[in-house]
Amino acid sequence: MSSELEWIERIRRRAGLPRAGGVVVGIGDDCAIFRPRGAGEDLLFTTDMLIEDVHFHKNTHRATDVGWKALARGLSDIAAMGGTPRFFLVSLAVARWAGTRWVDGFYRGALRLARRAGLPLAGGDVARSEKLGCDVVVCGSLPRGTALRRSGARPGDAIYVSGRLGGSALGLRLGRGPAWQRHLRPEPRLALGRFLRERLGASAALDLSDGLSLDLRRLCLASKQSAAIEAPPLYPGATLDQALHGGEDYELLFTVPARKRAPAKFAGISLTRIGAIEKGPPGRVLLDGAPLAALGYDHFRL
Amino acid sequence: MSSELEWIERIRRRAGLPRAGGVVVGIGDDCAIFRPRGAGEDLLFTTDMLIEDVHFHKNTHRATDVGWKALARGLSDIAAMGGTPRFFLVSLAVARWAGTRWVDGFYRGALRLARRAGLPLAGGDVARSEKLGCDVVVCGSLPRGTALRRSGARPGDAIYVSGRLGGSALGLRLGRGPAWQRHLRPEPRLALGRFLRERLGASAALDLSDGLSLDLRRLCLASKQSAAIEAPPLYPGATLDQALHGGEDYELLFTVPARKRAPAKFAGISLTRIGAIEKGPPGRVLLDGAPLAALGYDHFRL
Repeated sequence: MSSELEWIERIRRRAGLPRAGGVVVGIGDDCAIFRPRGAGEDLLFTTDMLIEDVHFHKNTHRATDVGWKALARGLSDIAAMGGTPRFFLVSLAVARWAGTRWVDGFYRGALRLARRAGLPLAGGDVARSEKLGCDVVVCGSLPRGTALRRSGARPGDAIYVSGRLGGSALGLRLGRGPAWQRHLRPEPRLALGRFLRERLGASAALDLSDGLSLDLRRLCLASKQSAAIEAPPLYPGATLDQALHGGEDYELLFTVPARKRAPAKFAGISLTRIGAIEKGPPGRVLLDGAPLAALGYDHFRL
Repeated sequence: MSSELEWIERIRRRAGLPRAGGVVVGIGDDCAIFRPRGAGEDLLFTTDMLIEDVHFHKNTHRATDVGWKALARGLSDIAAMGGTPRFFLVSLAVARWAGTRWVDGFYRGALRLARRAGLPLAGGDVARSEKLGCDVVVCGSLPRGTALRRSGARPGDAIYVSGRLGGSALGLRLGRGPAWQRHLRPEPRLALGRFLRERLGASAALDLSDGLSLDLRRLCLASKQSAAIEAPPLYPGATLDQALHGGEDYELLFTVPARKRAPAKFAGISLTRIGAIEKGPPGRVLLDGAPLAALGYDHFRL
């Protein structure tokens, strides 16, 4: 198989549709949604791996940075659905080179972000392994039936992004400076996600983890629509390519019905209209009128 | 650090006690317990890794077996608390050697057990990696406040095990036959766990994942008691050492108040009284009157 989308689609088909028993949304959105019996809230679940020499290198990423980012990725998924984080679980596969000090640093980094976002570490697993790897599960919640989905975009909806894009890819290339910090310590847009759901009435959202070109394609596929955009706002020093395909910006991509209008800023973060949803082949994205290839980060591209 | 218990204790101290917000039980039991707002049920969460060349080898373990076992381990934790499984998440780090066929087999194995246990696959993550590894999260549920805990054992309680022990360790040594099958495809004791909670009124329970000697020590530490046992029932062909320290039997270890009596069998599985809880130094286990070292499987033993 040649792409992560295909792998996930294959797994989704095999898993079948979620049946009765509380799972409202299964594979294919930022989070799975579970509805506990009798509760007024839906629970969101997301899980993300961070693996040595795939997502980070021990010589360039400090333990605290790896811990922070491991949790930040899941929190960003919770933010994309407009949820409030409730708890997280950490599975840590500890390589021989990682001693007590490294492991302490890892948890310190994750727990610093956890305190800021207000969620406790509720459990996990530890094991030995050749390479270091971790898998973080985050549970979030929101009022029943209110989750922001990828699938809600309709023709005419305006397409927005938060912040400026390409900073993480730029930082990865430079290995220093503010862009590198942005790569190491993304800030999940939790307050913005709640604002989009509660106040603005966004129609769809997801977080920019794998690059605008790939993530917007995912939103369009889920919503069965096309999109026409212009260049997104660039992180200072970043190229258009980095902004379109770079990934790991962890900003939010969202759509807003035509009759509503997003403010220019929310809590200091710019919100920029970059285009509109259009009727057309599901998943097609046009940039300045020309087809945009989905070149964002894909583990399984051949 | 020299043991997994020490690592977990260290992480637990750093994480702090779970505060308000729904987490009723954090690190230190088979599952974390989360209480959704307004719900009549508590939710159980457990996460377990299965890593190439640590927990399995690609030349001896088929993909379907790895998938089955990856889920079985989590289901066994749910069983130990008396819960009903509700959904699971799979994070899969795919090594280069593992193609579409292997990945298909992995999910087929996990989903076969999932269908039998009645829970859907709700989501997960996929990534590339050098070695194959997976992390499975299982969510279970039970009526509010009724979870079987490790900490509930009191002096005078009888100590029981289900089934016969040492089969998995024997199978690992032989690499064939029924004991090997038992190693590859453990059967989580879900119905038994619910029986212990709903009908028998067991005072404490956990699943035998790392060996009786280590797991009974954990139960005694959590309950702040000692235990005195005799030899457990042996799997045909297994040694006493394999039964005491072998691990991965995934039977249930549980305690029952003196006034109650467990049946000799439940659904074809023998329930055997192997001793009693006693007042004494927390965590001490005596076998036929002599101290029993906790030699069960420990990733972090030096």
